[in-house]
Amino acid sequence: MPASHRAWYFVERPDGEPTLDCFDLRETDRPTPTFGELLVRVDYLSVDPYMRGRMRDSASYADPWGLGDVLEGGVVGEVVESESPEYEAGDLVTGRGTWSDYAVVDADDVAPVDPDVAAPPAYLGVLGMPGRTAYFGLLDVAEPRPGDTVAVSGGAGAVGSTVGQIATLNGCHVVGFAGTDEKTEWLTADLGFDAAVNYATTDDYRAALDEVAPGGVDVYFDNVGGPITDAVFAKLNLDARVAVCGQIAHYNDEGVPTGPRKLPQLIAPRARVEGLLVSDYATRFGPAREQLETWVANGDIDHRETVVEGLENAPEAFLGLFSGDNIGKQVVKVGE
Amino acid sequence: MPASHRAWYFVERPDGEPTLDCFDLRETDRPTPTFGELLVRVDYLSVDPYMRGRMRDSASYADPWGLGDVLEGGVVGEVVESESPEYEAGDLVTGRGTWSDYAVVDADDVAPVDPDVAAPPAYLGVLGMPGRTAYFGLLDVAEPRPGDTVAVSGGAGAVGSTVGQIATLNGCHVVGFAGTDEKTEWLTADLGFDAAVNYATTDDYRAALDEVAPGGVDVYFDNVGGPITDAVFAKLNLDARVAVCGQIAHYNDEGVPTGPRKLPQLIAPRARVEGLLVSDYATRFGPAREQLETWVANGDIDHRETVVEGLENAPEAFLGLFSGDNIGKQVVKVGE
Repeated sequence: MPASHRAWYFVERPDGEPTLDCFDLRETDRPTPTFGELLVRVDYLSVDPYMRGRMRDSASYADPWGLGDVLEGGVVGEVVESESPEYEAGDLVTGRGTWSDYAVVDADDVAPVDPDVAAPPAYLGVLGMPGRTAYFGLLDVAEPRPGDTVAVSGGAGAVGSTVGQIATLNGCHVVGFAGTDEKTEWLTADLGFDAAVNYATTDDYRAALDEVAPGGVDVYFDNVGGPITDAVFAKLNLDARVAVCGQIAHYNDEGVPTGPRKLPQLIAPRARVEGLLVSDYATRFGPAREQLETWVANGDIDHRETVVEGLENAPEAFLGLFSGDNIGKQVVKVGE
Repeated sequence: MPASHRAWYFVERPDGEPTLDCFDLRETDRPTPTFGELLVRVDYLSVDPYMRGRMRDSASYADPWGLGDVLEGGVVGEVVESESPEYEAGDLVTGRGTWSDYAVVDADDVAPVDPDVAAPPAYLGVLGMPGRTAYFGLLDVAEPRPGDTVAVSGGAGAVGSTVGQIATLNGCHVVGFAGTDEKTEWLTADLGFDAAVNYATTDDYRAALDEVAPGGVDVYFDNVGGPITDAVFAKLNLDARVAVCGQIAHYNDEGVPTGPRKLPQLIAPRARVEGLLVSDYATRFGPAREQLETWVANGDIDHRETVVEGLENAPEAFLGLFSGDNIGKQVVKVGE
């Protein structure tokens, strides 16, 4: 009989803002790895905004979570049982697991964690999916050029904070939007952003942009949507590029949100707007991971994780993403 | 003393829908060409939706018309006086002129008209700026692939009708939107569109699209904006491309129009949306003109012009663009 552990189940689809009622923590049998799989003791669990989309019962880029299923998410942890020749018990790895004390992960989908480069939670942030999203979204989709003014919404999030720093490394003038003074201070004082706007204490985003980006915006990396995005679109320069990575302001909307029409604003600047998903770049994850590890190891890219303690608090950590509780990557400390 | 002629002056900036009060027809001296210029007897004058933008007192891609100035526009006509070694009296040319009986045009900006390829008014449509807009907007911006489903709004306009036919020549499944049965009939019976939707007699554009584009839309060439565009965005396929050429539904809006937000819809399909201006392709106008002339001469591309008789009726012809009075290119017959 397998040992037991705790796991979070998805039990109710939300209508609008998700609540704790959507989640149920149960004591259950630990899963058993089959060939090619690893059983991992979950040390850290990732909660991410895109998961809101998986709560909907409609096909999108990530399959919807099934009602009654264990919730899925990225994890970092130690291999306790290996059914793969590639890994052995004691290895520290990161991969796609579940919201639980122990998780089965696919060995093909796993990457090693090197604690000499960064503490393990960073492998869910700057060295994980969010870091790669920033890397490919900025460099491949938005194509920044030295001297460009780059605006980033969600600037203090896991993706945005990395985007801004990569843009800085590429000789851009970087402007971030974030929702607290602590966040904007982090962006400008620690991460090298040229300017940051606290959208929570600013009334007129266009006036704020006139100040921090007087020459207009060449690249906009959008994690948020809503009125920040509306303001940036009014400032797009000739040949501007917009990478649409996330729209967290709208994830809890039921029905289609409305706002200022943007297509008429694209013609005069011949602007390009493009949606992005990091999974499209899977064949290039290796080199991206190496580059990001180098930048982090060298101190060229700084990072931060907001850690919520205890698997039992994972839903709160997830819900906190929508009120911007996190600075940098939001993770949940589970075991270790 | 130079001979006189009639010319339309721009005398009032419109607030919302333009009216006849914006225009004033005056008897005035004919202009005199200086070195490098030609005096042309205007046979046909072009009225185009983009001119609405020039009525605003704000910088955009085309300079605003000055109050009290003669209105500018494309013309076809016969050279009556040449100050350029390139052309002589009697040559039939097309270029940028004015809303008047005679116009001075820059010889560098002029192209010859070959009545053996098509009747002169076609040089303001399929063989002029609208045809080149269709050519570069579709092939360079939207990049259609054989088998793609291509949707075109303003399908029976000068640009849209050409876009659809070039897409057909490239092996695409082409669906047009137009506002009368006569127009949709023209698209499917004469131009080879696979399907056409009369938006004026259709309530549910998404349902209509489900029928004519059941596999979704790979390329959308947008001349219109508004609810047609809203419906198409809900049907964008993976890797869809949207060329934003015009937004005539919004040209008379004062303030920023609102509508369903589109950025959230771009992420799952990784769609690309790009504004376009034909002037960016000026260095390639020569080969494009040749290709379009070949297609027209071969009968591969059909075209139609709606002719309003008399310079005195030019403002009505322009205003008619906003109610869709034209089938194909709207021109004004002035002289000849």
